[in-house]
Amino acid sequence: MNSFGRIFRVHIYGESHGEGLGILIDGCPAGLSLELKDFLGDLARRKGGKKGTTARVEDDVPQMKSGIFHRRTTGAPLLVEFKNTDIRTEDYEQLKDIPRPGHADFCAFRKFEGYHDWRGGGHFSGRLTAGLVVAGVVAKKIIAPATVEAKVIEAGGSRDIQRAVEKVLKDNDSIGAIIECRVRGLSVGLGEPFFDSVESMIAHIVFSIPGIKGIEFGSGFASARMRGSQHNDLIVDTEGKTKTNHAGGINGGLTNGNPLLFRVAVKPTPSISRIQRTINLKTGLREDLEIRGRHDICFALRLPVVLEAAAAVVLADFLLLERISGRVLKSKNRDSGLKEKGGKDDFPG
Amino acid sequence: MNSFGRIFRVHIYGESHGEGLGILIDGCPAGLSLELKDFLGDLARRKGGKKGTTARVEDDVPQMKSGIFHRRTTGAPLLVEFKNTDIRTEDYEQLKDIPRPGHADFCAFRKFEGYHDWRGGGHFSGRLTAGLVVAGVVAKKIIAPATVEAKVIEAGGSRDIQRAVEKVLKDNDSIGAIIECRVRGLSVGLGEPFFDSVESMIAHIVFSIPGIKGIEFGSGFASARMRGSQHNDLIVDTEGKTKTNHAGGINGGLTNGNPLLFRVAVKPTPSISRIQRTINLKTGLREDLEIRGRHDICFALRLPVVLEAAAAVVLADFLLLERISGRVLKSKNRDSGLKEKGGKDDFPG
Amino acid sequence: MNSFGRIFRVHIYGESHGEGLGILIDGCPAGLSLELKDFLGDLARRKGGKKGTTARVEDDVPQMKSGIFHRRTTGAPLLVEFKNTDIRTEDYEQLKDIPRPGHADFCAFRKFEGYHDWRGGGHFSGRLTAGLVVAGVVAKKIIAPATVEAKVIEAGGSRDIQRAVEKVLKDNDSIGAIIECRVRGLSVGLGEPFFDSVESMIAHIVFSIPGIKGIEFGSGFASARMRGSQHNDLIVDTEGKTKTNHAGGINGGLTNGNPLLFRVAVKPTPSISRIQRTINLKTGLREDLEIRGRHDICFALRLPVVLEAAAAVVLADFLLLERISGRVLKSKNRDSGLKEKGGKDDFPG
Amino acid sequence: MNSFGRIFRVHIYGESHGEGLGILIDGCPAGLSLELKDFLGDLARRKGGKKGTTARVEDDVPQMKSGIFHRRTTGAPLLVEFKNTDIRTEDYEQLKDIPRPGHADFCAFRKFEGYHDWRGGGHFSGRLTAGLVVAGVVAKKIIAPATVEAKVIEAGGSRDIQRAVEKVLKDNDSIGAIIECRVRGLSVGLGEPFFDSVESMIAHIVFSIPGIKGIEFGSGFASARMRGSQHNDLIVDTEGKTKTNHAGGINGGLTNGNPLLFRVAVKPTPSISRIQRTINLKTGLREDLEIRGRHDICFALRLPVVLEAAAAVVLADFLLLERISGRVLKSKNRDSGLKEKGGKDDFPG
Repeated sequence: MNSFGRIFRVHIYGESHGEGLGILIDGCPAGLSLELKDFLGDLARRKGGKKGTTARVEDDVPQMKSGIFHRRTTGAPLLVEFKNTDIRTEDYEQLKDIPRPGHADFCAFRKFEGYHDWRGGGHFSGRLTAGLVVAGVVAKKIIAPATVEAKVIEAGGSRDIQRAVEKVLKDNDSIGAIIECRVRGLSVGLGEPFFDSVESMIAHIVFSIPGIKGIEFGSGFASARMRGSQHNDLIVDTEGKTKTNHAGGINGGLTNGNPLLFRVAVKPTPSISRIQRTINLKTGLREDLEIRGRHDICFALRLPVVLEAAAAVVLADFLLLERISGRVLKSKNRDSGLKEKGGKDDFPG
Repeated sequence: MNSFGRIFRVHIYGESHGEGLGILIDGCPAGLSLELKDFLGDLARRKGGKKGTTARVEDDVPQMKSGIFHRRTTGAPLLVEFKNTDIRTEDYEQLKDIPRPGHADFCAFRKFEGYHDWRGGGHFSGRLTAGLVVAGVVAKKIIAPATVEAKVIEAGGSRDIQRAVEKVLKDNDSIGAIIECRVRGLSVGLGEPFFDSVESMIAHIVFSIPGIKGIEFGSGFASARMRGSQHNDLIVDTEGKTKTNHAGGINGGLTNGNPLLFRVAVKPTPSISRIQRTINLKTGLREDLEIRGRHDICFALRLPVVLEAAAAVVLADFLLLERISGRVLKSKNRDSGLKEKGGKDDFPG
Repeated sequence: MNSFGRIFRVHIYGESHGEGLGILIDGCPAGLSLELKDFLGDLARRKGGKKGTTARVEDDVPQMKSGIFHRRTTGAPLLVEFKNTDIRTEDYEQLKDIPRPGHADFCAFRKFEGYHDWRGGGHFSGRLTAGLVVAGVVAKKIIAPATVEAKVIEAGGSRDIQRAVEKVLKDNDSIGAIIECRVRGLSVGLGEPFFDSVESMIAHIVFSIPGIKGIEFGSGFASARMRGSQHNDLIVDTEGKTKTNHAGGINGGLTNGNPLLFRVAVKPTPSISRIQRTINLKTGLREDLEIRGRHDICFALRLPVVLEAAAAVVLADFLLLERISGRVLKSKNRDSGLKEKGGKDDFPG
Repeated sequence: MNSFGRIFRVHIYGESHGEGLGILIDGCPAGLSLELKDFLGDLARRKGGKKGTTARVEDDVPQMKSGIFHRRTTGAPLLVEFKNTDIRTEDYEQLKDIPRPGHADFCAFRKFEGYHDWRGGGHFSGRLTAGLVVAGVVAKKIIAPATVEAKVIEAGGSRDIQRAVEKVLKDNDSIGAIIECRVRGLSVGLGEPFFDSVESMIAHIVFSIPGIKGIEFGSGFASARMRGSQHNDLIVDTEGKTKTNHAGGINGGLTNGNPLLFRVAVKPTPSISRIQRTINLKTGLREDLEIRGRHDICFALRLPVVLEAAAAVVLADFLLLERISGRVLKSKNRDSGLKEKGGKDDFPG
């Protein structure tokens, strides 16, 4: 169940400490220009090595394995892979039977009956989001000229993000953060009724990013404290422009032409250097666990580009779907595609 | 795209002021006891007619059309229908070209090029959630003995919900609310890696309920302001019980055996009796709109049972899926199903 | 798993002797003209009552429950229902524990552990194809001006179909048949690489019609006896017109612009009036079974319109999908949809 | 749309003359033993190099990139890749604008507007079936102890396959063939009602194998010439064993416990060394085409193992699904999930 999308579809695979990881992108239209360097900017934004992020720095050189010919997409599936190189598995040996608090370890152990790859979170690792960033680069090309932009707006409860990170660094602890994402230039009517609203699909993919614990659109949780007379965005022109944007650019699950806006809550990194109590699943005894390894103090700092990718993947899917619904009759009349090509061909059967 | 689920699948249809609406449930196991009266309790909770909710009161008598035989599910699709009876379409005639602020009207008009059923929100109406409640009743039977319970914990920013409603009633305005939902008794390991995390699937279906603008799991947005040492839930026994439940019962996208907990933000009802400015899409001129019709002042009051249904539908799907993953080898050894039945049958081809 | 399609999606439900049956059609574009009388012609072709077909004649008046407004599709799901009226369940009482040879009875009993609706085949009945015919009517409108036409070309091994039927009627037996289906006017390139070839999707839906035991495209099984030099269809113009049509209008799984052609093998009706041996599942003893009820002698005579519907449903789905792949760049340049609408909208978030 | 399956899902990618190709397998249960050497036997059967098959011989060493840990599946997606090594692209340079008769060239050119990888058939190449064989090896482990076996039963219309190949070799021509596939040891009731019958799913995947033009189950096309009294398979014991197997092991779309049997028609290889007429898509002029490259004379000789894989993939999917439907109440009793509700099930079956 590592797949997402209806038309523009992504399939993710790989592990943190295995051979590598990657993404298989299906449903990408043919003829899109695409080459290695297109990925580098966004991948660099996701990398560690900066203050507040992990010391593990992978080269993250994507390898394009299929679906590309003469630097254009061919319409066939695109496979993009990353090799794992900077691995220190010994850091994780101790964790085999001792689940880390706040991690997937215990659940994965039980779900997969001990057969899962437990090294560095295995398939549950945040490292898999590198594949999502790759898909995001492709998706951003599809949704252009619409633009998507995310940034950390608060960390550890403070707007002064740098200072918050420095403070917690000294305490061997970690902090959470809030990220805001904005998409400009979307046409009206993207989204599908009922189950596949824009909010539904964005929330679906966003909650697959490890560590996200909340999402809100437009005024979000603040809406719950507003009155209708305050919250309703008055429509000011026939293009649907509204005076305010409490709805976050979405009404009835469809884009309304105003900027799409959402915020997510990122929990603090669960891996901290402090000693924490847990249980040894083999012996059943309590254990004091000290997590070594290399970790982010505030992994949210690496997530804005991942959120952009998540949003772009959803919107590319909606945009491609949109070419269908409600446009058939018009285009039939306009370009009468079938009438010209078909009809006459009455060859011997 | 009015479908949801992988194994336990629901397909929703209908309009607010058309002939009726309903839900088609596929993938329901055979042999579940099910009859009309099973639905009545939950449907009554969704009904209007109480203080703060709409004066439109439909009978909401579900009609079971297929998939039932001798009061048991047969394994074939279940269709459950509701007829619309208490319709006053004239209330909506004015809205044909004049989109109501805060509603889907404008987006639907553009997406479906004017062909949509605009009466009472048409297919976008909250009335379709009656179908979801029906699916929830079936799903609750599948996930039992796990229990799901939702309630409004705050309306208009106040914990005193009744008073908040009374106050806004006088002002011809509406209010939003926050609803909390809790599921107890789930086994460990429900959920699927990456794209189909428990949070992803619950958020997906929850955002298809009209008017939801935010969701958070466990400590949610408060997590973003916490430190790792505070947020991490320490594991205290080999069943995964944790000392605190900041994670809301989910780690790495999988249930961890503790209560599943989420909260949603519901916006204030957009239909208010006050005059609001909008645009006439035909003339392009601004209009003063006074919405008549019958509306909820705080439609969130009718939503707890809908949220329960949404959660139950997701969890039933996960539970049915869970019978597969990671259990194959064990069951092969244990009940050696195929070995007994198969193997020998070597009949003439 | 009673669903089919990616964009144009159909969900089937109901039983032969329950309240009724029907089809839920999702993904139908808005604005298609559609009314009751559009269905009557094709439904009449599926009806029994003619020589060689069952004496059970249902009115088969379709009821349109949703997705229609002012005789146009709205873009929301279409539900079309049939009530069952001409039911004589007593004919089937004997069959509860005694599986009929050649029927689903035994398999259904085991799969659903006895909870299935066994009356008249229940959910496995050929009567459900009435829903497919309804979907076919809608699909034919989408694929127009392409046309689809099927006919019985052989029954009981003979081209003289009427005489073959009369002969077997006297013997209280039944016969199978071969039906040929031809689609003219399709554009080039419908179909999707690898798993969703045109042959794959047509075969998938065709084998869901009860009683089909084989399908072949173009020269089909005869191809296996040909040489490449005979079988290859030489291309004679830049529109892809070929000199012969051994490929049946499909190369590499994609339509090639020539008429799409396939034939199916329909088995003889398994319900015959003669006494047949079978097993009583309760007692484990052999039984002599005489099937009463009303049955088709050659149910294939009612299938051409069902096959047309099946083909049309697949092709409508492909046609809607086709609006996406490989057309994005061109349309982006051509109608620069987003550039006009988007870009400038930079409202306060 | 390069994906197949509901629970056991395969995603295929790659090109004939690109970097490589492979398959991503999702939904494989954790704990299955799996290592490189498991693949070698079946891959060897698919290889060329034998009389009647292509001179292009790839090493076909599969590389397992993810989803494996300590030689067991982990429950995470399995990626298996093949590198292309024995490539001679110059053989195909001439084909860029000149579609080969009987190939996907023309359709792909039009569908992807010239952006497709045209080298050696690109993504349409039969070489991609190597990925399917890999998935088949995994699937065979899941369906064991059921066994699947396919063989060529006729080539060029003759049962003496070797002689038929030798004869056509001299004529610079190619021949088609018929392959028969048999699965033994399946339990009763695999398959899903209506759209996902066993025949539907097997036909779907089989027609994604390049060159298949027909499929029949059991007596297949011969059924169309039989009477009901001949065709009906009489049931002889309570396990569903039948006296004959005209149904090919399937009734009502479900397995009936008897051997599953199907045959496919494979067309002759379209690439022949003889000169063939075609069209230059650039100039619009007719061309005489002589296909060089290295080709199979009867590529059907390499397909039996591919067909086995296709059948195994479908059946693994059905088997995993089967753990759900109709088994819930019973298993609930066993593992105490629903002791309260289930438990007593002593209803009339």
